[in-house]
Amino acid sequence: MAVYTQLTNEQIANHLEQSYDVGTLDFAVGIAQGVENTNYLVAVKSLAGAEEKYILTLYEKRVNPNDLPFFLTLLQHVAGQGVACPKPIARRDGALVGEVAGKQASLVSFLQGKSRSIIRNPHAASVGNVLGQLHRATADFAATRMNALSLAGWQNIYEKIKGRLDEIQAGLEDLLHHEMEYAAQHFSQIDGLPHGVIHADLFPDNVFFEGDDVSGVIDFYFACNDALAYDVAITLNAWCFEQSGEFSPTKSKLLLGAYQKQRPLTPAEIAAFPTLLRGAALRFLLTRAHDWLHRDPSALVRPHDPLEYAAKLRFHHRVKDVSEYGL
Amino acid sequence: MAVYTQLTNEQIANHLEQSYDVGTLDFAVGIAQGVENTNYLVAVKSLAGAEEKYILTLYEKRVNPNDLPFFLTLLQHVAGQGVACPKPIARRDGALVGEVAGKQASLVSFLQGKSRSIIRNPHAASVGNVLGQLHRATADFAATRMNALSLAGWQNIYEKIKGRLDEIQAGLEDLLHHEMEYAAQHFSQIDGLPHGVIHADLFPDNVFFEGDDVSGVIDFYFACNDALAYDVAITLNAWCFEQSGEFSPTKSKLLLGAYQKQRPLTPAEIAAFPTLLRGAALRFLLTRAHDWLHRDPSALVRPHDPLEYAAKLRFHHRVKDVSEYGL
Repeated sequence: MAVYTQLTNEQIANHLEQSYDVGTLDFAVGIAQGVENTNYLVAVKSLAGAEEKYILTLYEKRVNPNDLPFFLTLLQHVAGQGVACPKPIARRDGALVGEVAGKQASLVSFLQGKSRSIIRNPHAASVGNVLGQLHRATADFAATRMNALSLAGWQNIYEKIKGRLDEIQAGLEDLLHHEMEYAAQHFSQIDGLPHGVIHADLFPDNVFFEGDDVSGVIDFYFACNDALAYDVAITLNAWCFEQSGEFSPTKSKLLLGAYQKQRPLTPAEIAAFPTLLRGAALRFLLTRAHDWLHRDPSALVRPHDPLEYAAKLRFHHRVKDVSEYGL
Repeated sequence: MAVYTQLTNEQIANHLEQSYDVGTLDFAVGIAQGVENTNYLVAVKSLAGAEEKYILTLYEKRVNPNDLPFFLTLLQHVAGQGVACPKPIARRDGALVGEVAGKQASLVSFLQGKSRSIIRNPHAASVGNVLGQLHRATADFAATRMNALSLAGWQNIYEKIKGRLDEIQAGLEDLLHHEMEYAAQHFSQIDGLPHGVIHADLFPDNVFFEGDDVSGVIDFYFACNDALAYDVAITLNAWCFEQSGEFSPTKSKLLLGAYQKQRPLTPAEIAAFPTLLRGAALRFLLTRAHDWLHRDPSALVRPHDPLEYAAKLRFHHRVKDVSEYGL
């Protein structure tokens, strides 16, 4: 929740004028949402006289500059395939990345719509649909990026937090110990499943709606190559539990049904799905537990609750058959 | 620089729907600029189908809730007189103040334009003009608010920082000691000058421009009753020094000339003007020195530089005649 790099209106106006053919700056507003980067909403008067809005992003230390071409060409590719997402604006020299105030920076189109914090059934269906579109749209995308947060990455995080997990909740040490063992033995079956570019962070914060329909997907900064069905599992975990913590079979069935209209899951993916859901819950439990144990009490950003994902993991332990997910 | 109170899109949409007749929420963006309150830029689809923008402000602890009716009826009055400033939107029940998430809240029209951090001569003229308009527009405004930052208020702040001023710069202790004595002896002449409602904080951050012309004035949260010429002095100090620190006689002459086309200064105001400029410099030197000495090194907000105002004060000491200001 911050603007890490403060820009003057003159800096923004000059940057647009020197690098882009988008028109002249009308106004700019530093956006408080967003934890990783600095974002400005910029409104310009286009050459045709209309007001048009963009997001100017300055990449702060948490994004590896070497990954920027992957993220931005991915957005360009996916937007070109008709998926609703921010469209990178090319600079006059053709590049998608420039520099402002010593930081790498991009300019993308502004998406209409707004994220939801209260998820209703039609939202889950529309998210399943857009995830399927996204996976189809990336089938012919050439660039690749490794997933830093798969099994080996989990092991690294686990090493940094084990022994302290019961500080968060009694029993969490034991839960994670056994789940890490289970993952080590079973998660490698992911390797044989259909792979492609996944969003890997399709949480409600990152999806905008107009009415009940998805108007756009943002925040591709975890996108990487991995099993497509693992992305479905991450998304199901994020959208198909009620705020009370209860699993919603209705939302799950709607999400998976809409997804499969775009891309049917293979029998191997369905067989692996319970393991993928456990892995997807483990991945967010690990990073949240890590951030919780290393939190700065004076920071404005409150860490996400690790226990939400411990509860989701325990739910998956109790499931006997994939039919309970609506498959 | 912060959003102190995080609202969900649903909370904002519900608040607009329940209290106002402005249409339905399109999107909302938490604004990083602004130190005192939480501000959201909200875009709505009006009943006529057009996109319209507003600022939703939640008042945090630094604004006294008892002052809100003064600030908001002042804006309403001044906007009604044609001064470019945010226009408060009345709730369906007629009130200008409501409540969101336990905080007092207002909705005002969004101002086009952008503030400038590089001040050019025409900006100074346009600011002088709008300040004159503002003083004329408040002549028939009935409500009043005391200036908490006049002589007695200065004395309170001075008591909290004296003895520590040389920590900021060698010689500052001596400068402030003598200036407080001068103010005690001479500043009371302000009482005999024309009084009215003053903005009291007309800094470049608080003035938006389209091209070279002021498109609006914001942030009336220091507005109070005091000598009008004191407001001119505050404004001159804020706009008529170059970034190098050098006084600009050109900008000063333009600002005062444009102001006097709206409201000519009386001979008594002109005679008191050097004292008012010293007082206006002292007032910001005191609050900045206080905030600098009590700053939180971990805070994101950097305190304003007190030495900028020490230099302005020393400049005024060297001035021999009001003609040097362009009067």
